[in-house]
Amino acid sequence: MLKTVFQDQMPANKHLGLKIEDLEVGYTKIYIPFKDEFIGDFFQNRWHGGILASIADTAGGIAAVSTVESIEDKVSTIDMRIDYLYGSEPRDLYAEAEMIKNGKRIIKVDVKIYHEKEKIIAVGRCAYSVLRK
Amino acid sequence: MLKTVFQDQMPANKHLGLKIEDLEVGYTKIYIPFKDEFIGDFFQNRWHGGILASIADTAGGIAAVSTVESIEDKVSTIDMRIDYLYGSEPRDLYAEAEMIKNGKRIIKVDVKIYHEKEKIIAVGRCAYSVLRK
Amino acid sequence: MLKTVFQDQMPANKHLGLKIEDLEVGYTKIYIPFKDEFIGDFFQNRWHGGILASIADTAGGIAAVSTVESIEDKVSTIDMRIDYLYGSEPRDLYAEAEMIKNGKRIIKVDVKIYHEKEKIIAVGRCAYSVLRK
Amino acid sequence: MLKTVFQDQMPANKHLGLKIEDLEVGYTKIYIPFKDEFIGDFFQNRWHGGILASIADTAGGIAAVSTVESIEDKVSTIDMRIDYLYGSEPRDLYAEAEMIKNGKRIIKVDVKIYHEKEKIIAVGRCAYSVLRK
Repeated sequence: MLKTVFQDQMPANKHLGLKIEDLEVGYTKIYIPFKDEFIGDFFQNRWHGGILASIADTAGGIAAVSTVESIEDKVSTIDMRIDYLYGSEPRDLYAEAEMIKNGKRIIKVDVKIYHEKEKIIAVGRCAYSVLRK
Repeated sequence: MLKTVFQDQMPANKHLGLKIEDLEVGYTKIYIPFKDEFIGDFFQNRWHGGILASIADTAGGIAAVSTVESIEDKVSTIDMRIDYLYGSEPRDLYAEAEMIKNGKRIIKVDVKIYHEKEKIIAVGRCAYSVLRK
Repeated sequence: MLKTVFQDQMPANKHLGLKIEDLEVGYTKIYIPFKDEFIGDFFQNRWHGGILASIADTAGGIAAVSTVESIEDKVSTIDMRIDYLYGSEPRDLYAEAEMIKNGKRIIKVDVKIYHEKEKIIAVGRCAYSVLRK
Repeated sequence: MLKTVFQDQMPANKHLGLKIEDLEVGYTKIYIPFKDEFIGDFFQNRWHGGILASIADTAGGIAAVSTVESIEDKVSTIDMRIDYLYGSEPRDLYAEAEMIKNGKRIIKVDVKIYHEKEKIIAVGRCAYSVLRK
């Protein structure tokens, strides 16, 4: 159900066109099909850095929310760091998010973005606040 | 000219619908009109955190590029941190970006995102690598 | 009293030799006298970057704790980013920390480190978790 | 030789008392024996967060410098993020640093700090600027 909510009922995610390929407690893998409007500039022909940041935040948020036990628990992003490692290409991307801390009040998630898993294009580190009922 | 390039010729920015209101060396103010697809989820009715990250990266990048002196200089984002301070509302936003370091090889920019300047919703801190000809 | 606790009763701060020059709710200014052992390497003759990070965390923590209302409130650092802007010199430093968010559960603080206020050497951005009784 | 320089000739590192246990190109493992003056406060009896930040910066810097090929290459820290995951104890620590990007001008390093490798206490992400001759 969480999968449907994230993919199809959140406007910004729907627009991103993401598909959740895998979802476990504290882990998710998502697939983001390339669209022309994701290009930063024509010269470099790469994904816009801001779109990659958006993907990192989204994947991290899904992994964080996957750990809550009640529909009333509230998760909100505290902050995020994104590091751009290597240039992206104008083709589909994957993002994997893995929880590195599951605290009573704080959740942290690491995200990797790539075309092929051997070459990571960008990494995100996200902090979430969780209010557990 | 830079203004036109950023607003109208970069696909991701064009889709964001941003307007550059002010542009000086090391400073910019941009305006981003609200669209329904920028909503994170219907319950909270707020801008998607990832879109705010995208806006921070975009505003920071414009301020960074405004400092280069040749069309051959190359600027690329090293990393970015975004902090979410207060909840956003489903209405237009502004982002102001101001350079805090202008080095030979590294540029740093601070970004503030707000509806009204008195209440900052999110702040970004961005590092750029610049290759000067 | 908070001043005495921070300056004189916390071993790491005591070793740093810091003096709290100003302390208000959500704001502090501290003074850190130079010591030879703070040098990173002899060639560059600058403060060790790690010591600056330590100063940022300390100043930020004092500003964060200054906002709590009960001795039972518990503040802990979630994360910190430090940006090195310009080279430091082997002489005394100041750090100013100012709260940018005072939430029910999250506090955020910005820190500036400098010899002279006109030239900021490093900036820190710190997130704290607060458990209010 | 690099090992001796880092351990014994840099004042701040010498004071930290670190020992380099392993050093390869793009990787290092360091050992930091506990000292009373590293305690943040007596109540919690934990390492001072700032000292952990200092350790992260130091380990990251060693891994970064290990990749340079000439003694004239210059490496400087651009920025660092540190995340505190779990409470530390008043006993010896290890830090492992691993390069995640080795670019012409930018190096990035991930750091893990722990008592026992199974439980990471803090993670650092560091960006370095390198000027290669």
